[in-house]
Amino acid sequence: MDTTVTPAGPGRWSGVVTDRWDALNGRPNGGYLLALALTGLQQGAAFPDPLVLACFYQRPARHGVFEMAVEVVRTGRTVETRQVVMYQEDKEVLRAVATFSDFDTFDGRKAELGSPPDLPPPEECPDQLGGDAPHIPITARFDYRAPAKDRWSTGRPTGDPTIEAWMRLRDGREPDSRVMALATEAVYPTVFELGGVATTVTLELTAHFRARPAPGWMAIRASTRHVGRGYAEEDFEIWDSSGVLACQSRQLARLIEQPR
Amino acid sequence: MDTTVTPAGPGRWSGVVTDRWDALNGRPNGGYLLALALTGLQQGAAFPDPLVLACFYQRPARHGVFEMAVEVVRTGRTVETRQVVMYQEDKEVLRAVATFSDFDTFDGRKAELGSPPDLPPPEECPDQLGGDAPHIPITARFDYRAPAKDRWSTGRPTGDPTIEAWMRLRDGREPDSRVMALATEAVYPTVFELGGVATTVTLELTAHFRARPAPGWMAIRASTRHVGRGYAEEDFEIWDSSGVLACQSRQLARLIEQPR
Repeated sequence: MDTTVTPAGPGRWSGVVTDRWDALNGRPNGGYLLALALTGLQQGAAFPDPLVLACFYQRPARHGVFEMAVEVVRTGRTVETRQVVMYQEDKEVLRAVATFSDFDTFDGRKAELGSPPDLPPPEECPDQLGGDAPHIPITARFDYRAPAKDRWSTGRPTGDPTIEAWMRLRDGREPDSRVMALATEAVYPTVFELGGVATTVTLELTAHFRARPAPGWMAIRASTRHVGRGYAEEDFEIWDSSGVLACQSRQLARLIEQPR
Repeated sequence: MDTTVTPAGPGRWSGVVTDRWDALNGRPNGGYLLALALTGLQQGAAFPDPLVLACFYQRPARHGVFEMAVEVVRTGRTVETRQVVMYQEDKEVLRAVATFSDFDTFDGRKAELGSPPDLPPPEECPDQLGGDAPHIPITARFDYRAPAKDRWSTGRPTGDPTIEAWMRLRDGREPDSRVMALATEAVYPTVFELGGVATTVTLELTAHFRARPAPGWMAIRASTRHVGRGYAEEDFEIWDSSGVLACQSRQLARLIEQPR
């Protein structure tokens, strides 16, 4: 997944933003950066499982070297909070805060009022990205199954900013917190189905991690309900192969309109 | 609203956590602390309007003096990101990051797929907090109108973790970003209607601010859909008196169960 980091001094880590996860706009995908941030945050953490991760994107990332400074904010008995700032050429690319815990050591009440996407089995859904978009590297990394092709890319947007699909990494890596962080931004923006949107710029994304995902396909649901002043929120759910909501995220993004 | 802060050195501010906003658990309400954090973040900010605010609660706050350290993360042409850490007795109580902009200087696409709570007019809804709970100071601060009394407090929870109500401050202060930050945590936790929950502890809350709210009543909707491992997410919407979604928040909280 290209998230290797190397020690670079006390509380500092370095690595490389590869060109293998570029998105539609020709820049490294925000979910890839989120997975990198989570990787930095996890180094030496007292607990293995992120509970909540909030990331503020400051500048577009570039291919090449990055540095990260990780701060331990507070280590408690059951949770630890940490902060990471990611730099490229001494300029801040993003900052993220996360609270970690250990899903093995506690349990508690369960009540699920939501439900997973209502999709035909993955083997009955065509791969909607198979080699179609060689100019968008991240599309080659995922097996992405949906009953029908998206409509915005054919010039006939549905007007309904909702996506449901199956996803998994083509390289066989099973879902975990980093893969889910990556996935929250790895799908095209829901607002494309409103028509006329060229791209979006994510200001902030918060993800809740609710379980270690079971191996296999992730069923994802993305939706936007509120668009105003050129900003949109996007909600994203990841349900694991056992039907458990494993991750839920929400982002605020600025819309870049297509020239008329 | 008891959110006055005083300069206490470069990038530092001090103030007092009053006892006027205590919640059910006898501690200062998390929304009040969020309003304090936002107040600190707004001091000297390049732009007046928060777009997004993410707050990680580290320790319960106490009544009395606090200090805040504010860092300017990045000032761009149209947005500025800042971070605040709030301390009491040199221990970190919370840290929050926010991005600000100016709602007067930009506009853009609008599409609203949600709708405000479907409530009778406020004058037809009884005040559900009028003097009922003198041991919970924050309940005396709000005029809170709902068609029916909550059920959990009568020992007959509905099983449906959803709340819709009208709210405004009793002191006549009109809604603004600080009042909305306060409101996002000022209502009883939705999960109380599941029964058996003694209280909740908020780990993190992210709020999107989408408009400067019109004066008058705020219509609020709170709902929880996913409860697992003793954690619950709570979504909160604030619709202003003109029917615009002015604020949307989501928190992750730990449930403290009632002793059996």
